[in-house]
Amino acid sequence: MEYPSQLIEEAVNEISKLPGIGKKTALRLVLHLLKQPNEETRSLAQALVKMRDEIKFCKVCHNISDQEICRICTSPRRDNTVVCVIEDTRDVMAIENTGQYLGLYHVLGGVISPIEGIGPDNLNINSLLHRINASDSTIKELILALNPTMEGDTTSFFITKKISRPGLKITSLARGVPVGGELEYADEITLGRSIMARTHYQPN
Amino acid sequence: MEYPSQLIEEAVNEISKLPGIGKKTALRLVLHLLKQPNEETRSLAQALVKMRDEIKFCKVCHNISDQEICRICTSPRRDNTVVCVIEDTRDVMAIENTGQYLGLYHVLGGVISPIEGIGPDNLNINSLLHRINASDSTIKELILALNPTMEGDTTSFFITKKISRPGLKITSLARGVPVGGELEYADEITLGRSIMARTHYQPN
Repeated sequence: MEYPSQLIEEAVNEISKLPGIGKKTALRLVLHLLKQPNEETRSLAQALVKMRDEIKFCKVCHNISDQEICRICTSPRRDNTVVCVIEDTRDVMAIENTGQYLGLYHVLGGVISPIEGIGPDNLNINSLLHRINASDSTIKELILALNPTMEGDTTSFFITKKISRPGLKITSLARGVPVGGELEYADEITLGRSIMARTHYQPN
Repeated sequence: MEYPSQLIEEAVNEISKLPGIGKKTALRLVLHLLKQPNEETRSLAQALVKMRDEIKFCKVCHNISDQEICRICTSPRRDNTVVCVIEDTRDVMAIENTGQYLGLYHVLGGVISPIEGIGPDNLNINSLLHRINASDSTIKELILALNPTMEGDTTSFFITKKISRPGLKITSLARGVPVGGELEYADEITLGRSIMARTHYQPN
C-alpha cells in the first residue's frame, strides 16, 4: 500500500509491530490521532516511554512493580507459606481480582516452548527453585497455576522434577464445570474431571 | 481492575483511548512492550510524536502530505478536470490502489452528522466550493464518492445544492454486484440497482 506521507508510513510500521495489530488497524489509529490535538499523541507517547523506562520487576516474585520488591511480597497480611506459580502479570491480576487468594506469587514470564525457542533458562525458574530450596524458606505449598496447554503442562512437570524439598505440598487449580456454566456445553474432559473430583455439596 | 503499577495503569489508560482498543487489549500491548527492548517503545513513541507534529495537510485537496501541496495535486500527469470527493485519506489510498483513477481529490475530513455535531463548517466543503466556483477553475467533473450511508448521502446532497457552476458534470460511483461476488449473496437493493444500471457485455 502506498501512503500519502513518509511520516504516516513510519508511524503505521511502528504500530503494526504490536501483536494483533495489522497495517489497516494501525492506519486507522494513526488517522484517529491526527484528528485529535497534538497533546493526545504526546501524552500517549510519554506514558509509553515512561512506563518502559521506569518500570521495575519485583526481585522476589518477578511481578511488575513500582518498587524493588512489590506490594504483595512486602505485605504483612499475605500468607508467605503459599506460592502460586503463574505465567505472567495478567494471571496475577486475574487471581487478585477474585479476592480469594492471600498467598504470594512467582511470575515465570512465560512457559517452556521449544518451538519458540524458550527454554527453562529464559524463564524465572531458577529463582523459584532458590525460593523453595533455600534453608530459611517459609514455603509449604506450591500452587502450579499455568495454563493447561502442552507448554504449561511441560513447564509444571519440569518444575516438579527440580524441587528437592521433602514435604512440600504441590497443588494445581481445580478443573471442573465453570460456575454458572451449563452441563450440556461443557466438554467431555472437563465434565469427566469434575465428576472424578466431585466435592461435598455446599448450597451457594 | 487493579494494576500492579501506576506506570502500567497510566499507559493502559492512554492506549485504551484509541478507538477499538479496550483496557484488556491495552494491557496486552503494554505487556508486549515490556518484553521488548526499551528502544522498541522509544521508536514507537518517537514515530507517533514526529508524525503528529510534522504532518501537513495539502492546501488544495486537504489530503495528508509531507509538503504544503501534495504529490497528487502537483503532479503534471494527473487530470485536473476531474475531482473526486471523498471522506478521508483512507478512501484516497483505496482509490489510488486501484490504479484506475488519474484525476484529483478533495478530502472532506468527514461527513455531515448532526448527531455527532459535525456540520458543513467542520468539513472542507467551503474550500471545495471555492475550487469549483473559481473563475479560473479547470474542473469539469465532480465525482461524489462518499460512503452510501445517510450521512454520506446528506453530504453529497448538500454539496450539489451549493454548486452554482453551470455545465459541471456531477457523477457518483457505480453501485452493483462486486466483481467475483455471487448473485445469491447480494442484497436486493444492490442487485436491483445492478439490473437497472446494466452495461454492455464485456468479456473479462
